[in-house]
Amino acid sequence: MASRGKVYLIGAGPGAQDLITLRGARLLAQADVVLHDALVTAEMLELCPQAEKILVGKRYGQLSAAQQFINKQMVDYAHKFPLVVRLKGGDPMLFGRADEELRALEEAGIEVEVVPGITTALAAAAASKQPLTKRGVARSVAFFTSSTAPEHSTHDAIPDTDTLVQYMGGREAIATAERLLAQGRRPDTPVVVIENCSRPDQHIRRLTIASLARGLGAAHGPVLVMLGEAMTTRPHQNLEQAPLPSAAEQLRA
Amino acid sequence: MASRGKVYLIGAGPGAQDLITLRGARLLAQADVVLHDALVTAEMLELCPQAEKILVGKRYGQLSAAQQFINKQMVDYAHKFPLVVRLKGGDPMLFGRADEELRALEEAGIEVEVVPGITTALAAAAASKQPLTKRGVARSVAFFTSSTAPEHSTHDAIPDTDTLVQYMGGREAIATAERLLAQGRRPDTPVVVIENCSRPDQHIRRLTIASLARGLGAAHGPVLVMLGEAMTTRPHQNLEQAPLPSAAEQLRA
Repeated sequence: MASRGKVYLIGAGPGAQDLITLRGARLLAQADVVLHDALVTAEMLELCPQAEKILVGKRYGQLSAAQQFINKQMVDYAHKFPLVVRLKGGDPMLFGRADEELRALEEAGIEVEVVPGITTALAAAAASKQPLTKRGVARSVAFFTSSTAPEHSTHDAIPDTDTLVQYMGGREAIATAERLLAQGRRPDTPVVVIENCSRPDQHIRRLTIASLARGLGAAHGPVLVMLGEAMTTRPHQNLEQAPLPSAAEQLRA
Repeated sequence: MASRGKVYLIGAGPGAQDLITLRGARLLAQADVVLHDALVTAEMLELCPQAEKILVGKRYGQLSAAQQFINKQMVDYAHKFPLVVRLKGGDPMLFGRADEELRALEEAGIEVEVVPGITTALAAAAASKQPLTKRGVARSVAFFTSSTAPEHSTHDAIPDTDTLVQYMGGREAIATAERLLAQGRRPDTPVVVIENCSRPDQHIRRLTIASLARGLGAAHGPVLVMLGEAMTTRPHQNLEQAPLPSAAEQLRA
């Protein structure tokens, strides 16, 4: 059977509705079906009121079985509808399991196009006003993740770039800090930790590798850890204030 | 004198008009003045017909003097107009000299906000349908550049991440390939080279490190070099065709 539909893998960006691209927003407004991650925000889904919206995938540590089911859903919907969107938090080509989804669609003979999204590292750099590269100081940056999946060794070396960004780094903060110190990074290396980047409950913390080694406590959303000399604050920089407790929280206290 | 205006450092993305964010496009439509790079495309500037548009900066190897003049222009315009945009190709926080621009604005007491953009690596991954990370194969990616500025040694090690992306890598292709081979990367490692990413004259080439070592020839626009096992093509992948010569080129031939 010839397939009728086309699938777009679209990056939603970090969460704020206006941080998707114009191309992504226009395709969302035309979509028949939108298969989205739990990381995609409710406000982002307001861009496709006409579409059938289907929550797929797990927030952390997606299982292979779940991925195979997502692949099957994409293929099935593409046989039924002209415009199917697979909407992913951040960018689809970075820590997004795009390889598996592209393979499944291509094997089924379905046309697919990828629309990039703002990966969280770039939104976090913007929110904290800390460039990831800096002339004469930081000329390279690496994005990495330490998956808890069993096939991944936690003894892999952390990259040797000037700036480092760890995705989903909240739970592994202590292990990351210890490995960085063992690899020779200075304990006073500046660290910026962003939780819920670009969302109303965004929270930015400024630490060092030494304080990161004491852990981050419980996180309530996606956590990104950025570190290196590029995270040094500037003399006249307006640093973000700690968020004030909301009225509701004050009443409860 | 109290400053009146606010400056937005906005990432335009790789070039296509619809690859800017909604936030970036909305601010462009309200801007009084737009200071833009040569890398920003004419179609992108159609998003701010009302604004005074000023071309600043050089395409390659910007001099410090030129950067200081850009900084001064931003400050001067912010004293005269409420909404000044500094529009940069790609993302402002990655190879964008944002540190120097933020410092200048902060020292002058001018409010500044950063709006992220699609960095070319993400647009190139989307265009070539090659994810930058791949489960079990590529868990880290580094973005780096080899500047021709005199303070930069060409003997710096290239990062050791699974996937590598070199910005502005066209002229240094041979040197990069030789360093990668010397650092132990396999000669048959797949390489994807993208020129003029996301633009009508986008051109994608698929090579290996061995063939990269023979050079890329003359480039006619920004060149991005991506490499690593994540660049391996998939069995059913529709590879982009070499662009057909346009009618005008056929007439000339």
